[in-house]
Amino acid sequence: MKAILLAGGSGTRLWPLSRKNYPKQFLKLNGDSSLLQQTVERLLHVLSPQDIIVMTNDNYLFHVKADLKGVYDNPLIILEPVSRNTAPAISLAVKYCVEKLGSSSDEVIFVSPSDHIIKPVERFTEYIRNAGEIAKEGYIVTFGIRPKRPETGYGYIKVRSEKLEVRNKRYDCYKAEKFTEKPDSKTAASYLEGGNYYWNSGMFAFTIGTILEELQKYAPEIYRNLGGNFEEVVSNFVNMPEISIDYAVAEKSNRVVTLPMDIYWDDIGSWDSIYEVLEKDEKGNVKAGDILNIDTKDTLIIGGRRFISTIGLEGLLIVETDDAILIAKRGEAQKVKDVVNELIKENRKLASEHTTTYRPWGSYTVLEEGNRYKIKRIVVNPLERLSLQVHHHRSEHWVVVKGVAKVKIGDKEIFIHENESAYVPKSTLHMLENPGKVPLEIIEVQNGEYVEEDDIVRIEDVYGRS
Amino acid sequence: MKAILLAGGSGTRLWPLSRKNYPKQFLKLNGDSSLLQQTVERLLHVLSPQDIIVMTNDNYLFHVKADLKGVYDNPLIILEPVSRNTAPAISLAVKYCVEKLGSSSDEVIFVSPSDHIIKPVERFTEYIRNAGEIAKEGYIVTFGIRPKRPETGYGYIKVRSEKLEVRNKRYDCYKAEKFTEKPDSKTAASYLEGGNYYWNSGMFAFTIGTILEELQKYAPEIYRNLGGNFEEVVSNFVNMPEISIDYAVAEKSNRVVTLPMDIYWDDIGSWDSIYEVLEKDEKGNVKAGDILNIDTKDTLIIGGRRFISTIGLEGLLIVETDDAILIAKRGEAQKVKDVVNELIKENRKLASEHTTTYRPWGSYTVLEEGNRYKIKRIVVNPLERLSLQVHHHRSEHWVVVKGVAKVKIGDKEIFIHENESAYVPKSTLHMLENPGKVPLEIIEVQNGEYVEEDDIVRIEDVYGRS
Repeated sequence: MKAILLAGGSGTRLWPLSRKNYPKQFLKLNGDSSLLQQTVERLLHVLSPQDIIVMTNDNYLFHVKADLKGVYDNPLIILEPVSRNTAPAISLAVKYCVEKLGSSSDEVIFVSPSDHIIKPVERFTEYIRNAGEIAKEGYIVTFGIRPKRPETGYGYIKVRSEKLEVRNKRYDCYKAEKFTEKPDSKTAASYLEGGNYYWNSGMFAFTIGTILEELQKYAPEIYRNLGGNFEEVVSNFVNMPEISIDYAVAEKSNRVVTLPMDIYWDDIGSWDSIYEVLEKDEKGNVKAGDILNIDTKDTLIIGGRRFISTIGLEGLLIVETDDAILIAKRGEAQKVKDVVNELIKENRKLASEHTTTYRPWGSYTVLEEGNRYKIKRIVVNPLERLSLQVHHHRSEHWVVVKGVAKVKIGDKEIFIHENESAYVPKSTLHMLENPGKVPLEIIEVQNGEYVEEDDIVRIEDVYGRS
Repeated sequence: MKAILLAGGSGTRLWPLSRKNYPKQFLKLNGDSSLLQQTVERLLHVLSPQDIIVMTNDNYLFHVKADLKGVYDNPLIILEPVSRNTAPAISLAVKYCVEKLGSSSDEVIFVSPSDHIIKPVERFTEYIRNAGEIAKEGYIVTFGIRPKRPETGYGYIKVRSEKLEVRNKRYDCYKAEKFTEKPDSKTAASYLEGGNYYWNSGMFAFTIGTILEELQKYAPEIYRNLGGNFEEVVSNFVNMPEISIDYAVAEKSNRVVTLPMDIYWDDIGSWDSIYEVLEKDEKGNVKAGDILNIDTKDTLIIGGRRFISTIGLEGLLIVETDDAILIAKRGEAQKVKDVVNELIKENRKLASEHTTTYRPWGSYTVLEEGNRYKIKRIVVNPLERLSLQVHHHRSEHWVVVKGVAKVKIGDKEIFIHENESAYVPKSTLHMLENPGKVPLEIIEVQNGEYVEEDDIVRIEDVYGRS
């Protein structure tokens, strides 16, 4: 069995914590590990690291690498050249399995989003093993969750009542009859009552043979693009249609079955869900950060670096980051998308970036922007470096506050240590590198008539650097 | 007539905007000028600058100076050596009038807080003139406001029904019968109904002769300390009892009258009052800052530098500063004092300081504090300087981002201009000065094993510098 983890999504429903350039799968919402890390750790109960393929894109590559670093070495990561939704992404990964990993057509593929909460892991892995056995018989297995409320934000699967029999073994698994995306609340309530409806958890299991046959039948415009070798599929990826595996195959194929899972599952798609998921104190408050509550109940408060004080509140969602604060009534968290859409419309960075921007070599945080100057804290990871570059409109002062920097300024190469500084005049070739074993932290003061990120001429072509 | 403005109060009821070191009178809540500036501007309709005495203390001296700078030159400012409430402060100012300004005993003194909103100014000044005439007859005039609601946060004055006749002129002014501080809401409601109760606006008018006689009679422990010359009174100020002019004299003297004022008055003593005072949009929201409201009404939002987004809120108070956020239900703003008390109890700077700290020479703002380093933006006003100093546990890098700095480091004296930098090693004597015409802005990166404010040895004794 191989697993394909989908980690290329750019959801912003958890804004201001999630942003386009820092989406949900990388957030640490319920502990010390990110949702992606938790997803991988669950799978490692069934699979070896070399059987796990993480699908993502350029933008998130260093996030994925950073997250997987502590979990296992040499992760298999495939970059989607452009965003084309799940059907093309999964097809590309299947191509990789066949060509690069030598998978045969009866190898089972387990597909999973990377930003859900699922527990307990023991029962979950048991379901995956069962799904594998069922998939081997030519079925496309979906994983259903018994609805707990008339949720309008999920997809539903209607199933037939007869249990599936596979090789004389009767599984608690049913033929899927109908898929419905995000029903209205009346419909959702009737589904809840009906009893033969399940939430679609977004996970799948099928053999390579099965999915290729069904793609050929129901999504020929994808199948057609899978003809060449892997590198050709990558080059032609842009020609793939933008379509989900649900629409492309699952809703059409008659080989789809649903395996109900009696486990805790949440896609935590809004701050409302997060309130439900996280542990509450005796007053029903979820709290993280530097907080003083007076007469406050049933409220979620996720603080960043500032002190948050509340008085007389009930049923609110409060989320604070370095540059934005969200205060919403509980139950209305879905309107966060309206906030994000407005920010996008106004072309504001708040929709896509945090004050800290992550780069392949580390990160930088804008501490202050003034007229003609900008102050950044730059962190360069051990043995990483920024590209050789020139700025024509600003000079830069660097003060090392931690670690050691190797810097090239003009034709000089020097080392600067903690509490030492260097000056880079305008239009001077320079490079910053961390030759050490610990992260390098420097404070950069930029001065000039123009201090935006696009005053940069990169002399060498180091992919993904800045 | 002289005016005594009380500008030494340290109220924090408008926390997190007001703090112990930046109290309400200096806030710009309803426009471009501070409440102190507005108070002074109102008085300049009746008085000349040289008749206005501002009482404050060391801590607020530079705030007072900065606020008055744009209004008039050479302000008369008296510093209360220690805080002893209003009776000793007023007594000290009266002593000053007699001894330094040559006031006679029949000179009228008008006393006013400096943190109220009063309008329109024309009608207000008419009341002050009338009060002056009444005061000359030996009365202590208080200024009453017809109650608009059963407010429990104010003091009330009960008056007799007969109008006062002064020199054959009948004034709409009444003998005061009883003072009540902050009644409970039932009592406040009965006062509202009674009709012969007024809110005590905290202003007074009396002659020097009258107040000295009444102090002698009802507050001998204050009067006794007024015996020597002004400088002696200052030296002995610490021996004054801590007592308000209301308790010390107004509630006891039978010469107290109340002049009802038919004007707009608010002491804006809480965020609830501020919501009432400020202009609302069509949804009943008061907004200042970078704000996006979705389905939000009857809410006050005072933003600082961050983006604030609200969804589905009603009747809240939201106030955001660089280091703290208050979110309270409207009507419960008085509990802000519980927040401040808790911060004081925990010995946190948040109760007393903003991230920007004002000093006689300018200000500094902590941009970031890390392990072994701290980054500040320092603004030095033209022709001002910091004291000659030494730090034993940190070195400092200075980068000038605006203006020009004259710096002494060890025995060298150099000028550093925009985009230049200087380095001050540990245990090295240094001084920073702005020799120029525009504010000097520098970014300071401190490095060392201890970067707190108290690692400083001041070599010269420049009062109030740092």
